[in-house]
Amino acid sequence: MTSHAHSPYKFCPLCASELVLKLQMSEERLTCPNCGWVHYEDPKVAAGVLVLRNKKVLAANEVLPANEVLLVRRTMEPHIRQWSIPAGFVNAFEDPQAAAVRECREETGLEVRIESLFDVLYGREHPRGADIFLAYRAEVISGVLAPADDADQAAWFPLDQLPPLAFETTRKIFEKLANTIH
Amino acid sequence: MTSHAHSPYKFCPLCASELVLKLQMSEERLTCPNCGWVHYEDPKVAAGVLVLRNKKVLAANEVLPANEVLLVRRTMEPHIRQWSIPAGFVNAFEDPQAAAVRECREETGLEVRIESLFDVLYGREHPRGADIFLAYRAEVISGVLAPADDADQAAWFPLDQLPPLAFETTRKIFEKLANTIH
Repeated sequence: MTSHAHSPYKFCPLCASELVLKLQMSEERLTCPNCGWVHYEDPKVAAGVLVLRNKKVLAANEVLPANEVLLVRRTMEPHIRQWSIPAGFVNAFEDPQAAAVRECREETGLEVRIESLFDVLYGREHPRGADIFLAYRAEVISGVLAPADDADQAAWFPLDQLPPLAFETTRKIFEKLANTIH
Repeated sequence: MTSHAHSPYKFCPLCASELVLKLQMSEERLTCPNCGWVHYEDPKVAAGVLVLRNKKVLAANEVLPANEVLLVRRTMEPHIRQWSIPAGFVNAFEDPQAAAVRECREETGLEVRIESLFDVLYGREHPRGADIFLAYRAEVISGVLAPADDADQAAWFPLDQLPPLAFETTRKIFEKLANTIH
């Protein structure tokens, strides 16, 4: 039997009665003894964009392609001042692709277009983190780079010179990317 | 400004005070004026498995491969007695791959192994439906086909002779599959 007793809920949000643990379809869930409301706790979902650009650099006498990635620096704990791809929580009823585009706009000032789903990652890394992370490949279509919202810096980094990364999820995305492009 | 006022919550689940709408980071959310709790409503996430098997059939004098898919018949509204791939809600903190495997076990009696992520679909089709649907390719590793839980039938169908499908999400998965295998 799975117990869902880790929720901090104490009172029914519909009628304010005290909740009790009760079996629902063989799982123990917080239930209202008065109105019958059951707390089906949902996973927290985040969505982000992996935005690459191909910068030409002059090396000796030849022009080499150098892939760069768009990252933002966090203004909040945990991992304050470390970097991640532009990302944030998906709201109820929100299209996760629209959420990823919105978060990139809020954090970097850049408007992006989703190209494809890159990966779905799982694992809550801290108490206020996401359970499920949806990573999309995207490209910039307009805007001027300007950090805002919960990012105090936004910048392009060469893939072989990444700054300190905030999350295991971000590192896994770059690992998968390395396996994809080599 | 986005308003998140569609939630049915009336009382704070931590202290039972009456909730009020208040701006939080430029979005209007249900907030507790007593303890400060904010209702960040999460999307509902479902996960399911697309399980194919290659059945050999004798046609005239040659053996033709015929792809079949595992489907379950719903015992609940909406779309009662229509068919979908084995699927169900992902719980908070649950690995969506594990949720998909669990739902297949509960509904079909078959133990499957996840092969790959097939698609992420978006759109709540009915009030108690999911916002985000994670579809995985999977293969059967053990078990005997026996419907249970919220399925009263579980069966293999040839891909060109599908029964009435319950959800737009299921139809989109088969459309994508058709584009993938032809």
